[in-house]
Amino acid sequence: MKALVLQKKKGLPSYTQEAELNSEGSEGIVVDLHYSALNRRDYWITQGLYPGIKEGVILGSDGVGYYNGKRVIINPGLDWGNDERCQSERFHVLGLPSDGTFASKVVVPKENVYHAPKHLSDVEAASLPLAGLTAYRVLFSRCQLQSGDNVLISGVGGGVAHYALLFAVAAGANVIVTSSSEEKIGKAIELGAQHGVDYTGENWVNECKSIVPDGFDVIIDSAAGDGFQNFIKLSSAGGRIGIYGGTRGPITNINPQILFWRQISILGSTMGSPSDFSKMLHFVEHHSIKPVIDAVFPMSDYAQAFERIAETRQFGKIVLDNGS
Amino acid sequence: MKALVLQKKKGLPSYTQEAELNSEGSEGIVVDLHYSALNRRDYWITQGLYPGIKEGVILGSDGVGYYNGKRVIINPGLDWGNDERCQSERFHVLGLPSDGTFASKVVVPKENVYHAPKHLSDVEAASLPLAGLTAYRVLFSRCQLQSGDNVLISGVGGGVAHYALLFAVAAGANVIVTSSSEEKIGKAIELGAQHGVDYTGENWVNECKSIVPDGFDVIIDSAAGDGFQNFIKLSSAGGRIGIYGGTRGPITNINPQILFWRQISILGSTMGSPSDFSKMLHFVEHHSIKPVIDAVFPMSDYAQAFERIAETRQFGKIVLDNGS
Repeated sequence: MKALVLQKKKGLPSYTQEAELNSEGSEGIVVDLHYSALNRRDYWITQGLYPGIKEGVILGSDGVGYYNGKRVIINPGLDWGNDERCQSERFHVLGLPSDGTFASKVVVPKENVYHAPKHLSDVEAASLPLAGLTAYRVLFSRCQLQSGDNVLISGVGGGVAHYALLFAVAAGANVIVTSSSEEKIGKAIELGAQHGVDYTGENWVNECKSIVPDGFDVIIDSAAGDGFQNFIKLSSAGGRIGIYGGTRGPITNINPQILFWRQISILGSTMGSPSDFSKMLHFVEHHSIKPVIDAVFPMSDYAQAFERIAETRQFGKIVLDNGS
Repeated sequence: MKALVLQKKKGLPSYTQEAELNSEGSEGIVVDLHYSALNRRDYWITQGLYPGIKEGVILGSDGVGYYNGKRVIINPGLDWGNDERCQSERFHVLGLPSDGTFASKVVVPKENVYHAPKHLSDVEAASLPLAGLTAYRVLFSRCQLQSGDNVLISGVGGGVAHYALLFAVAAGANVIVTSSSEEKIGKAIELGAQHGVDYTGENWVNECKSIVPDGFDVIIDSAAGDGFQNFIKLSSAGGRIGIYGGTRGPITNINPQILFWRQISILGSTMGSPSDFSKMLHFVEHHSIKPVIDAVFPMSDYAQAFERIAETRQFGKIVLDNGS
């Protein structure tokens, strides 16, 4: 079958038409994949910056395809376990260590397969699972977002951030976004954001304050780093700051007095439970949410797709046509 | 009446026998106070390190006394508001800006007055309100402590930390404490802690890890500072770190990858709502919890009491006899 196979512990995968479907030791079912989608995780793996990288694995966490004549998508979180609060030690993500969705077929546990939302095209449905799940959990299960909340979403172009924007707007929140790109801010406003702030400007924190003087009820971030301390200052009393990434490294200089006096919560979040996944699908269907597709590449043109995510030029999701 | 009145914006209060009971603009009731208790807040005020310090105020947040022939204690949190998540902007604490409990009488809103738990002496009851409320909220309302949880309490001698120890033990948790004092660790173990670790030792983090290899479900801290980063490493998957103080300054060097991958929550907490106060009283009565009284001084010997709290020599609560 066709697939993108990782040949080295660092570097892009290779395209092959002769990959084998590995179902050993698995009690899974086989899904015929039509489209798959890239996540930042796939990029980190090609940079050698992910734990447990192994040669020979087929990458890819997201996909849409057919099983038993039904159009399905796959929850890429495997073996979450029974605790809503956190994943078990056996938890892993489709596409490393087990073979993923950049292939003609994939073997997955039956309970990870769900009907694809009917209002979504194949391309749109392929883009939903990992990023939609991550956005749903951090916004709702962790930060308890409610209608009317003031919400700040940093770095809005990324896949998760763009779903967080769509979900928060659908839930009736007032959403402010940050980005370094005027173009991305423009797109976010088209999608329902109230305002956008360029975080490369010296005055961006005061700009956010002037828009929402009482502070943000929910802040969603995946950068961390030195800039994170500003989110404490921008948080409302009782505010929740959800963090699902750390591209800018360690968090520094958090003021503990503001943290405890305002009863602020800093909430780490990654992926989501099976219950989060079901609730996310229901939410997407109920609100007829349509993701933004940044680009679709044939799977054999994967190098262009990886280049685009590497340079963070995208707004929304980058999809591969698996060429079934 | 007798009272400790703050004369300057920095420095100890003065003892007087001719203070006036200030009830202007208040719809409160008058409680005849028998005992009061010191909190770290009172010490910070004498150091000029608290917002809104004003001359002429009677200090003191905790007290036991009589109202209408009934023995009562006072919830020192005034005007919390209607949101369980955080206090309103009108919220303030008894003893600054409004006159407090280091006096023969105090005027407080009727709804802040509760029957004192019957199993407590006057001295014990006086020590309960502020520290008990703070400990209850951070442990239960914020960190959702449950029976069987592994709990780490840092700097165990302080009033709040000592109540956190008593409450967590009563709730069926396995409690580990840290302190710089062998004597305080010994006392904590007498009170039900499983282990104590000296945090001045180079190896204290590994020592904690070896005692609880899977990490702590709940960590309670009021120091913040550089050392706080270790709590992220010591946290279990799904762990909650409650922080109610910041004596060691800004929090630095938090690893975002551990924070989000383990779904850790960092939860700022201060004081508590009226509901927290009621639940705390019920918990104390239900479990017949007896606080540790470090020392009792006549109110006129307040300088010794302040010296003791300044040097953090105490284990448990320091109480003043108001000399009614």
